[in-house]
Amino acid sequence: MSRLAKGRLPKQSEDFPSWYVEVVKQAGMAEHGLAKGTMIIKPHGYAVWEYIQRALDDRFKATGHANVYFPLFIPEKLLAREAEHVEGFAPELAVVTHGGGEVLEEPLVVRPTSEAIIWTTYGKWMQSYRDLPLLYNQWANVVRWEKRTRLFLRTTEFLWQEGHTAHATLDEAQEEVLRMLDVYREVAEDVCAVPVLAGRKTAAEKFAGADTTFTIEGLMRDGKALQCGTSHNLGQNFSKAYDVQFLNRDGEQEYAWGTSWGLSTRMVGGVIMTHGDDKGLRLPPAIAPVQVVVVPIYKSDDERSGILEVAGKMRDALAGNGVRVRLDDRDQHRPGFKFSEWELKGVPIRIEIGPRDVASDQVVCVDRVVGDKRQLATSEAIASMASLLDGVQRALYEQATAFREANTHEVSSYDDFTDGIEEQGGFWVGGWCGDPACEAKVTEDTKATIRLLPIEREDPGEACLVCGKPGLERATWGKAY
Amino acid sequence: MSRLAKGRLPKQSEDFPSWYVEVVKQAGMAEHGLAKGTMIIKPHGYAVWEYIQRALDDRFKATGHANVYFPLFIPEKLLAREAEHVEGFAPELAVVTHGGGEVLEEPLVVRPTSEAIIWTTYGKWMQSYRDLPLLYNQWANVVRWEKRTRLFLRTTEFLWQEGHTAHATLDEAQEEVLRMLDVYREVAEDVCAVPVLAGRKTAAEKFAGADTTFTIEGLMRDGKALQCGTSHNLGQNFSKAYDVQFLNRDGEQEYAWGTSWGLSTRMVGGVIMTHGDDKGLRLPPAIAPVQVVVVPIYKSDDERSGILEVAGKMRDALAGNGVRVRLDDRDQHRPGFKFSEWELKGVPIRIEIGPRDVASDQVVCVDRVVGDKRQLATSEAIASMASLLDGVQRALYEQATAFREANTHEVSSYDDFTDGIEEQGGFWVGGWCGDPACEAKVTEDTKATIRLLPIEREDPGEACLVCGKPGLERATWGKAY
Repeated sequence: MSRLAKGRLPKQSEDFPSWYVEVVKQAGMAEHGLAKGTMIIKPHGYAVWEYIQRALDDRFKATGHANVYFPLFIPEKLLAREAEHVEGFAPELAVVTHGGGEVLEEPLVVRPTSEAIIWTTYGKWMQSYRDLPLLYNQWANVVRWEKRTRLFLRTTEFLWQEGHTAHATLDEAQEEVLRMLDVYREVAEDVCAVPVLAGRKTAAEKFAGADTTFTIEGLMRDGKALQCGTSHNLGQNFSKAYDVQFLNRDGEQEYAWGTSWGLSTRMVGGVIMTHGDDKGLRLPPAIAPVQVVVVPIYKSDDERSGILEVAGKMRDALAGNGVRVRLDDRDQHRPGFKFSEWELKGVPIRIEIGPRDVASDQVVCVDRVVGDKRQLATSEAIASMASLLDGVQRALYEQATAFREANTHEVSSYDDFTDGIEEQGGFWVGGWCGDPACEAKVTEDTKATIRLLPIEREDPGEACLVCGKPGLERATWGKAY
Repeated sequence: MSRLAKGRLPKQSEDFPSWYVEVVKQAGMAEHGLAKGTMIIKPHGYAVWEYIQRALDDRFKATGHANVYFPLFIPEKLLAREAEHVEGFAPELAVVTHGGGEVLEEPLVVRPTSEAIIWTTYGKWMQSYRDLPLLYNQWANVVRWEKRTRLFLRTTEFLWQEGHTAHATLDEAQEEVLRMLDVYREVAEDVCAVPVLAGRKTAAEKFAGADTTFTIEGLMRDGKALQCGTSHNLGQNFSKAYDVQFLNRDGEQEYAWGTSWGLSTRMVGGVIMTHGDDKGLRLPPAIAPVQVVVVPIYKSDDERSGILEVAGKMRDALAGNGVRVRLDDRDQHRPGFKFSEWELKGVPIRIEIGPRDVASDQVVCVDRVVGDKRQLATSEAIASMASLLDGVQRALYEQATAFREANTHEVSSYDDFTDGIEEQGGFWVGGWCGDPACEAKVTEDTKATIRLLPIEREDPGEACLVCGKPGLERATWGKAY
């Protein structure tokens, strides 16, 4: 529990980065660990992650995947086999050189991702096309040595899931890549209420070792984009590097086709920055550890016992209906303090019960998102709670979608674009000739990057925003975390 | 899927260690990783772990605990603060010395357990008794550099949960320790069908840093004991080492009282060695990834389509009732091969559907544990499946309990004891004077250790088995993994 009084949070409009740091701390989501760049995920933050995990895991299983677990340590030479992969990750590696009091013969890398170790093993798991596809996922911690870190968004160690699949054909691999991208989109939008754009990364922005990377990107309330999950078509890059072949339907040896896809605790940061306001978090009911808080209001001890009894019954009735409800019966805090604290923690609905409410068999029901305050008959509050929570879930999604739409701009002049993205942030959509030089120039001029291209290439019908040559792709630009 | 034919498993009675290695591999539970001593947990093995996880996690939450996540890396000097703790773990540490291409200023230890890092943080999370208890758990990987490793039982990296709680009084801490020990007992017995003895460890066997360690111990089919989970009363050892004080009810600063408790993927090994037989695994339905397999039996293509249709309906009906069911419709394997493979994988119940069964609207139902083979009307098989599965769960527990009882011996002569434990294994119960020298002598003579003492000290009513002096404790000895 935070002991900070109301109003101690910086305003988003004045200093968004400080607002983020403070809301993460004060709402009890996470704090820094002792080793540089590490994170302690606190109970409120971890519970949000658990709901995201469950939503993903259920969908992974419904789409035919099983969970596995591969080791944390990767022999250093193993990682080196896929050239682009090792080049991409080498600067970020943590290395174990001592074990059991002795210097290791070969240093072990702490996994930054698990393609290398998994593809070494997949060779043993497939002989013929009948063994394919391999559809596996693991929930794991990974380590990437980062210079600048930010809680949830970029930490040296983070938690994620990484799916790794092997297929008999490129088409099947591509289907899988898009299927899992859509699972990510669905969990982001339907569960986290975070509207996202789904698309393809440019060669400069793709995963080291992939043929093509697909992404879902959200727009945060400061106008910056957040990559929330990625799904990679690995082609035969890893199967060739690790010599993973199978007997295909034509009786020939063929290198397997691979995919990998990951979503991490970064998504919790995305939820915070998509929905939070100056009062604190606003959590979508689907992932809120506490969906409803009941706050009793009393002045005397006489009032207290009667009100706590009614409040307890309300809690039990809601819990019995499957609502995640907390009765805040702490004596040492006044109701106003409790209101602020639960607002800070983002609880979707607050129920207040005072003496007059008890007398009239009513409660006051306050909505964290719309701010509605209404009196409801006790029985009605209980009966309608599920639909009230649905309303909050929907309202958060709609507000975030409206925000994104208001901050997405079609643009055809380079000056308008560079001025606009500097002043307003947001997504900027325009033609791109496909030349990495034009892509790089924008980043140099504005720090913005191409967040995504359409999943399938579309003729943009306009010239490249940068060089004026014919456009090859319709690109969406943004400054990003 | 294993491609090995029936009968390739060594017999338990002839070579239990080889039987274990082979059943773990052939049933697709796990295999060795590339870095020394590491383990790849395969889908069938990981799914068993997931059911154990869910059973534990539900009970942790029902007893008021929340999940958190603390970093993998611990600054080396931090670990050194609790003297006994660091002495216990120093020989087993893996150390990261390089990060991001540079030598680290201070080496980072990969957590062997998280008391050190958690207690450093708990100091910030409590001011007064009102903040207590802290009741947190984490699901994590830990690393202990082991010389000799064995899949699931002892690997350099393993998965576990570690609960870490802080309390205002010693009594509350002790209540917590025993509460969680009982959660472990319940999950072992009611979920994994592994009967366990619950008790207290001697000073020689306790956790490095604990005042007292409690344990649950199972007896494997080779007569060796397996420690399945431990719960530690840490007293004020860690709060003093990491200076964690709170303002107590009397307005005085007091060091907090701690507990920790852990159960790991080792439990999967315990399930294998408690229930497995010469045909392979026998999985308790509560943790079996596949509870029922439906095997269609046909000779011609004509028969095939009709039987697959009926088999598919059976699968759907069982799945609709919440049974985890698989229809094995692979064309490339004959029924006998499939029977052996699913027996190897430990599936509790097999349903066979052949032409005559279809004609008479019946199925053949075969029980993996009792070996019962009976014809049931299709509707009856569907309606009674839950109770058939309950029967398998109960039978496994009863068989294991009978085995343990047959292999538990009261003993008062040291010669009978040393001869008996050498020849038969099992648990041996007798008096102990409490002297570590007597405890050490037994281990020297027999390799057996005191597996546990009663939770509360009981007068054994007999002399020390070793030295003949008055007995102080009633000790249970065994050879252990």
